[in-house]
Amino acid sequence: MSKLYNDHVLWEETAGAALSLHSGINNAVLHKTGFIKSLQVKKKIFGEDSLSGFRSKETFSQEDLISGRSMIKQVIIGVVCGAAVLTVGILIGHFGIAKSGTSAPSWLKDVAKDVDESLIEKFMSEVDNIQIQENLRSLTKVPHMATTAGDEETVQIMLKRWQDPETGLDKAWREEYWVYLSFPDKNNPNTVTVGDPTNTVLHTIREKEKPYTPDQSDPEVVQPYAAYSPAGHVKGKLVYANQGKPSDYSELNKTVDLRGTIAITKYGGAGRSAKAINAAPYGVVGVLVYTDPLDMNDGLMSDANETYPHSWYMPPSGVERGSYNIDFGDLLTPHLAAKEETYRINATDITGIPPIPTQPIGFEDAYRLICELGGEPAPDAWQGGFNCTYNFGGPGFKPTSSFTNSDVKLDIYNYEEVKPSSNVMGFIRGSVEPDRYVIYGNHRDSWVHGAIDPSSGTSVMLEITRVLGKMVKQGTWRPRRSIIFGSWGAEEFGLIGSAEYTEQYFAALSERSVAYINVDIAVFGKKLHTAPVKAPGHEKSVYDNWLQYTNKTSPTHGLIPRMGYLTGAGSDYAPFSHYLGITSMDMSYTYDKTKTNARIYPAYHTAYDTFDYASKYIDPGFVGHQAVARTAGNVLIRLADSLILPLNCADYAESLEEYLSTALNLYEIQSSLGDSNHLYLVSEPLKHAVTSFRAAVSNLEKVIQSPDLVRWINDQLMLLDRAFLDPLAFPDKYGFRHVIWASSSAGKQTFPGLADAYANAESSGQASDWDKVHYHLSVLSQAILGAASTLTDDMPIKEWLKNFH
Amino acid sequence: MSKLYNDHVLWEETAGAALSLHSGINNAVLHKTGFIKSLQVKKKIFGEDSLSGFRSKETFSQEDLISGRSMIKQVIIGVVCGAAVLTVGILIGHFGIAKSGTSAPSWLKDVAKDVDESLIEKFMSEVDNIQIQENLRSLTKVPHMATTAGDEETVQIMLKRWQDPETGLDKAWREEYWVYLSFPDKNNPNTVTVGDPTNTVLHTIREKEKPYTPDQSDPEVVQPYAAYSPAGHVKGKLVYANQGKPSDYSELNKTVDLRGTIAITKYGGAGRSAKAINAAPYGVVGVLVYTDPLDMNDGLMSDANETYPHSWYMPPSGVERGSYNIDFGDLLTPHLAAKEETYRINATDITGIPPIPTQPIGFEDAYRLICELGGEPAPDAWQGGFNCTYNFGGPGFKPTSSFTNSDVKLDIYNYEEVKPSSNVMGFIRGSVEPDRYVIYGNHRDSWVHGAIDPSSGTSVMLEITRVLGKMVKQGTWRPRRSIIFGSWGAEEFGLIGSAEYTEQYFAALSERSVAYINVDIAVFGKKLHTAPVKAPGHEKSVYDNWLQYTNKTSPTHGLIPRMGYLTGAGSDYAPFSHYLGITSMDMSYTYDKTKTNARIYPAYHTAYDTFDYASKYIDPGFVGHQAVARTAGNVLIRLADSLILPLNCADYAESLEEYLSTALNLYEIQSSLGDSNHLYLVSEPLKHAVTSFRAAVSNLEKVIQSPDLVRWINDQLMLLDRAFLDPLAFPDKYGFRHVIWASSSAGKQTFPGLADAYANAESSGQASDWDKVHYHLSVLSQAILGAASTLTDDMPIKEWLKNFH
Repeated sequence: MSKLYNDHVLWEETAGAALSLHSGINNAVLHKTGFIKSLQVKKKIFGEDSLSGFRSKETFSQEDLISGRSMIKQVIIGVVCGAAVLTVGILIGHFGIAKSGTSAPSWLKDVAKDVDESLIEKFMSEVDNIQIQENLRSLTKVPHMATTAGDEETVQIMLKRWQDPETGLDKAWREEYWVYLSFPDKNNPNTVTVGDPTNTVLHTIREKEKPYTPDQSDPEVVQPYAAYSPAGHVKGKLVYANQGKPSDYSELNKTVDLRGTIAITKYGGAGRSAKAINAAPYGVVGVLVYTDPLDMNDGLMSDANETYPHSWYMPPSGVERGSYNIDFGDLLTPHLAAKEETYRINATDITGIPPIPTQPIGFEDAYRLICELGGEPAPDAWQGGFNCTYNFGGPGFKPTSSFTNSDVKLDIYNYEEVKPSSNVMGFIRGSVEPDRYVIYGNHRDSWVHGAIDPSSGTSVMLEITRVLGKMVKQGTWRPRRSIIFGSWGAEEFGLIGSAEYTEQYFAALSERSVAYINVDIAVFGKKLHTAPVKAPGHEKSVYDNWLQYTNKTSPTHGLIPRMGYLTGAGSDYAPFSHYLGITSMDMSYTYDKTKTNARIYPAYHTAYDTFDYASKYIDPGFVGHQAVARTAGNVLIRLADSLILPLNCADYAESLEEYLSTALNLYEIQSSLGDSNHLYLVSEPLKHAVTSFRAAVSNLEKVIQSPDLVRWINDQLMLLDRAFLDPLAFPDKYGFRHVIWASSSAGKQTFPGLADAYANAESSGQASDWDKVHYHLSVLSQAILGAASTLTDDMPIKEWLKNFH
Repeated sequence: MSKLYNDHVLWEETAGAALSLHSGINNAVLHKTGFIKSLQVKKKIFGEDSLSGFRSKETFSQEDLISGRSMIKQVIIGVVCGAAVLTVGILIGHFGIAKSGTSAPSWLKDVAKDVDESLIEKFMSEVDNIQIQENLRSLTKVPHMATTAGDEETVQIMLKRWQDPETGLDKAWREEYWVYLSFPDKNNPNTVTVGDPTNTVLHTIREKEKPYTPDQSDPEVVQPYAAYSPAGHVKGKLVYANQGKPSDYSELNKTVDLRGTIAITKYGGAGRSAKAINAAPYGVVGVLVYTDPLDMNDGLMSDANETYPHSWYMPPSGVERGSYNIDFGDLLTPHLAAKEETYRINATDITGIPPIPTQPIGFEDAYRLICELGGEPAPDAWQGGFNCTYNFGGPGFKPTSSFTNSDVKLDIYNYEEVKPSSNVMGFIRGSVEPDRYVIYGNHRDSWVHGAIDPSSGTSVMLEITRVLGKMVKQGTWRPRRSIIFGSWGAEEFGLIGSAEYTEQYFAALSERSVAYINVDIAVFGKKLHTAPVKAPGHEKSVYDNWLQYTNKTSPTHGLIPRMGYLTGAGSDYAPFSHYLGITSMDMSYTYDKTKTNARIYPAYHTAYDTFDYASKYIDPGFVGHQAVARTAGNVLIRLADSLILPLNCADYAESLEEYLSTALNLYEIQSSLGDSNHLYLVSEPLKHAVTSFRAAVSNLEKVIQSPDLVRWINDQLMLLDRAFLDPLAFPDKYGFRHVIWASSSAGKQTFPGLADAYANAESSGQASDWDKVHYHLSVLSQAILGAASTLTDDMPIKEWLKNFH
């Protein structure tokens, strides 16, 4: 999993990332599931007020995992707008359900076949936790950062497994792209030092994390670094800049002259590269980034006895690596697949990467630096987990410190290189609709051993393909629609493998893809609460557990599990959802956020994310992984085999209504501050559009009740998300085209373009900015009405939409 | 028909506009037709070297028209890649052709039904020339400029006809948009005068054309004007600037100080608004535009006895009106449907319209002005049809002229207004695939009476809908796929009605449209040669005649009629082809270009384009209209009824190969001038892409030979053009997204983005411009490979494409 931020987004992927159905359109698939015990909503930290109430509302308990055959009886029922009442008739192509007793030839039955529930039971019973454990062991033998020898080893593992004659897929192959990556120099490691005025080095930041197991000493463990930080040699007095948000530097600048300083910042609140991008205008010359124990280790100082290898917590020398960029996909080939001969922009034209040298460090070193800082005490909200007062910096260290008058010096030797990175692709050809694709993917590359990120997801994927592959090879099953599996390369550097794939096959994928399922980090943590493990056969269903911990009241469904929206770019779903407009979901099993402060699982992007850590502190016994494999595989089979696609357009309408209601509440009230004309503008055309969409959904529901044109209905369902794309709506947000699910910085859960434009207009008060509010209203109204028109069983016609209100 | 130009396009719609199949993909449909006697290719005048050899190669004779039942036997056979061998089996939905003798229920036969040739014969026999004549009479009773009372009368005619209980369609309705139009002020007509230094008016240009029939005196005949020219009052010494191309002003400026002058220019060579846009940088303050008799009236001075009402030639007072803008669609709502509440840009932000007052005048007045000009004689190529030497202007008139020392003064009172304009839409619901649309359209608005432009096309459309509507109402026929008819509003102002429609229903139309057929000017002229009318029953087929006069040698088909490419924006096909990527065709019947100099039929956009003119000098007896109605209706029925869409992807491959071959010839040779590295860049990835496309086509041809997945094949065919869209490829060409068929100014019949970038790089020699050549190569290679991947019967896979070379 990669964290990408941009100044519009300020999006944070949290440890709570869990089952997020893009747009809730799949709600119906899942709110009948009976085997997901705890699923949590991927969330968004809005704007600068990160870690706000919205987060806490969505932190929920993890319950125990289910294993054994008892769960098999809990059948997922894929319902669509009531289509569950559809008795399996005889489907004639996409044209008709024949009356029973018709003399249709027997081969027609294949065509009419719906999901086979016994097949799903068989699939679930065969998903094996020990197989997943062994997958993980094999995938995490060596560090496998993108394009390294270790990465190639994982390519070979995937190919071997997917080409296995007994349990492999129909075919498997490699797709290679030449991508622009950034690495530290092995021969000249990056250094961060404290030096006194005579250039005597008083302190040197650890080069690498302290190893606790042999694999952590592997020479291929990459030094912690900020990918895409420029090389450079800078020194200056140290200042503490909280999370490196624009407001942090602005606040700090009131007290301290920032010119020529080095800023130390903590993770969270702003995107990685934003911490440096926000700093540069103030004359800051270098940036350090660390993980504050308050945000990870229960607010404790976390001495060695409390952290890994004694617990799941981050050791003092642990450092979160990461890609310090904003845009996703290869940075040199925007909108083009990065083939060898592809046109590349100049590296100097890349935007969204740090303009000044930047380096992440461990909190053990950060402690030394921060607790020695002079100057005024930082505000309460800036204080962290160290047992000292966090000062702004004089700039520099306090007079009583042994570091007084010393500079902090960064010597960064990162270099950039275009290297071939591989996706491994696998394919099961559909029997009836081979030209319809269900896509399932996860990245393969990690920063170090990547046991959890991403190999937990890859282990799950390999188990799913083993079970399905065996059935295919034995001839006992072939999906109705084709299934594409993607093991993406270079995700950590910015979703590169998946983005290049969607660029290369844009036309075919957008015309034919039914849905995309992403399982990156499969399990975030084991239970952190005290409830006893329930006896087998006695578990609450995952559905019920999910419902208990994170829910919402839907006008249609009543109390249901809450799912988040995939509005960010935290993993490989982004190119599918935002660039292609393919209905997407992202799924994982997570821990109880009420029991810990951890922003994410503590070994995230460190050298400690190993098989040892995963098997001891994330998911002993791998039953969490097993539950995720069962859930994800179940959804996959339903998407591939259902006669009518299990995509719930009524839930889409509900999401739009929620957005609308939020917009009306926020902007009808607040618009009294602005031009009152905007009250009308906000409410009327947008209300009309949303109402029309709901009407179109209701109409489609009726059609689905007695389907006689299945392929046609499925086309409507499949292409619905595509109707919301507008490649010109967000000129400043690379790759974001979806006018409902695009990222937003306004911190409001409503239409993103509208929310951002409104916030901007409200802040500037300028007529031209109010014009942009109007522009986004028009974009939205047109897109929603356009989407509504794709749901009619007729042609697009203004009169038709008028009938519905 | 509207003429739109932009500085990238310099596109000219010619009188020769005729049957143009977008991309030739439909070649196969037509090169078996036996009833089109003469069809001519819509052509492109490239760059500044307009009227070059390319034009003359494509001017061909018109032969006599066919009428009577004899032609009915000449059946169109819709073949696709050899799919004509497909015997009509029993199609089961999109999934299978059952073996004969299967026990499939009888209702399945509907689903499997292919085109009914007897139905087509019946259709053709019922298409009636007299009905078309009466349609035209009724449509041209009054002037019907967009949004006027006369326009509303035509709306009512269309609605009445399409809602007729005996011969109407399933439904018909109005779609309204609020569009930005430009009009002259009735109360303050625009004036152009010659005034001496004492401000005595020595000459006043005619306000309106001289009427020869009562309808030409209708007070609703709009004064000739340049729509979107700004209002203003300017005067200055007159200069003659040929066609107003950049090179013309540059040449003129060598001799004459252009500051403060008024330029008189002739139509042709540059887009209407370009004549003023090109002039302004030289300090020219106003522009006059006229039609030189050399470009219209056989090079003769054309005195009154030689012109209408005595012949089809343009009378001396005739003035071509027109829209002086570059972009298509409503100018205030780019990318958004112009609904009442839609966001609008500021009018001051519109680009592509004249920056200085501009006015068109008749050649009788132009003669007075030009023949009095002083200064040096203009180059030979600038001379025209007047019996005097065309001088540059002193600036101003010659000393011997009575106008000496006089200024020319323009008083322009044009005003802009947002007014509601209507499309009238008609619909026949498909029986088997109602969610697949064949769209047939033409604009309804004219400049004056618009008998030929556009009412000839509308009369044909009404006859087609009458015959089809009757069959639908009688229950004897219902198309397999739905048919949408569009009578577009405000085309003359820039394809506004069709563009707004495609913006409003973007998603549904791009997902579902099979093809778009445009018939604007149905017939351009009657025969101008001396061959006798052949006896009925003895005619050469239209196909043979077409073949004789305009042909090419295809590697696949041998000698076949030549079709043009729809690379411009001359009529309402542009939003469908360029913005939505829908396979499109444009069709008309034209005159023998070897027999006349006429750029277009001479009454084009004048007050003389009336029923009288049409019935006497364009198509007496309306048999040309009848032939077009039969042809267009025939294509329409085949697109709507064929089991497999009659779209020939092999011809698409052939077009790409032609483009490639041209590119290789041009750029491999010329690249020795530049960086030799570009030789490789041009040839290799692009060759690979085109080769792969051809391979994919061959593969699909095999699949089509034994189709078992009809809907799937049809999806591939239908969506092929969409695969070539790249909304970001041409940031400076509004609405152009199709990387193969976009407009180009480089004057080469090859990939437009590549050709323009290459020309630009060659001219500047700058590395950054060579980079753009590379960029376009990558865009093209990716789009063509992407399109190839949509043709596979499998999934997009690199290996698959590799198999083919």
